[in-house]
Amino acid sequence: MPDLILTTYDWVPEMPRGFVRDLRVRWALEEAGLPYRVESTPFKERDADHIAHQPFGQVPWLTDGDLSIFESGAILMHLGEKSEALAPADPRGRAEVTEWVFAALNSVEMPALPWAMYQFMNLAGGPQWDFVDGFLTLRLQRMEAVLAGREWLTGRFSIADILMADVLRVVDNFDGLAGYPAARAYVERATARPAFKKAHADQMAHFAAAD
Amino acid sequence: MPDLILTTYDWVPEMPRGFVRDLRVRWALEEAGLPYRVESTPFKERDADHIAHQPFGQVPWLTDGDLSIFESGAILMHLGEKSEALAPADPRGRAEVTEWVFAALNSVEMPALPWAMYQFMNLAGGPQWDFVDGFLTLRLQRMEAVLAGREWLTGRFSIADILMADVLRVVDNFDGLAGYPAARAYVERATARPAFKKAHADQMAHFAAAD
Repeated sequence: MPDLILTTYDWVPEMPRGFVRDLRVRWALEEAGLPYRVESTPFKERDADHIAHQPFGQVPWLTDGDLSIFESGAILMHLGEKSEALAPADPRGRAEVTEWVFAALNSVEMPALPWAMYQFMNLAGGPQWDFVDGFLTLRLQRMEAVLAGREWLTGRFSIADILMADVLRVVDNFDGLAGYPAARAYVERATARPAFKKAHADQMAHFAAAD
Repeated sequence: MPDLILTTYDWVPEMPRGFVRDLRVRWALEEAGLPYRVESTPFKERDADHIAHQPFGQVPWLTDGDLSIFESGAILMHLGEKSEALAPADPRGRAEVTEWVFAALNSVEMPALPWAMYQFMNLAGGPQWDFVDGFLTLRLQRMEAVLAGREWLTGRFSIADILMADVLRVVDNFDGLAGYPAARAYVERATARPAFKKAHADQMAHFAAAD
């Protein structure tokens, strides 16, 4: 039986399917070829056991033997130490991957998530839209310059690319990368990988099975 | 001459003083007692050298010998490996600190920063405020439950507390912790530490010197 157990919701509504953050963990596990199994926690009721594993009542969390880790960023950092397919072992390479992991989750996702929520709620163009859209634009302009010059963020595919591509594909989903061809090509390159395709299909199947 | 060089802006407007993210790095360096010096990059003009060190044209970045690291989260993870005053060395302890580092920067700062921007721009109560405020409330309710039961996030002071306290004190600055006594006490406890006080005073003096 595999030591790695990924827990996600048993079911989610149609809209977030394909974007629930267990996908990041599935993707990393598939890239590394690490054996794992998936367990479910109820979406509709977040009980004390759920909160004990994930204090915000969200998903995913990963257990590795007697370690239980929440936050997709922390889980991917942990997996990055288990497999050189996910991150290099030398100090310089690790520092580069780490800075881009935080860039994805703190510098880019911070404006990308509100932007996507505004799009989802049909609030684009309304009050405060210029602020929300302008904040993301600042980041996308810089990411475009970065991605125009490289295939992957650190010279090789890593957990930083899993996180950055997953953040950017949410923007792309609402056509927010139309003016950023290098960023769009990067998302296409990342999501063409067999490990992403398997992770995505597995997440869709997991939630469909609960309908 | 110290190997660690922290770069921040030469000057910033009055409002962000005391909150520029070099403070997180200063705080960690002071906690660890690591020697460092501070250099400046122009606030008003972000040149190619700045972008080479920090691709979003922001601050801070840290150089450690021939390593140059951006993103305050990545810098603190790096410093956490240099000093047990900042993070434990055992795998379980490191995993706990890492998950709370990401919780601070991805789960809590993501709603806290827009909330603070709305407050700063006097947009509280206006359009979309319920969304912005509601998103933060979800996180603060959970953080209050967590902090009601512990002094520090992982049973000992660490880089996770530097980041979480720095994120929460921005909310506290706009009186957003009034309904969360444990979170407010946590911020008071963290910012009463001599290392925070020195870091804060040094940042204020750094920017004042450029006026």
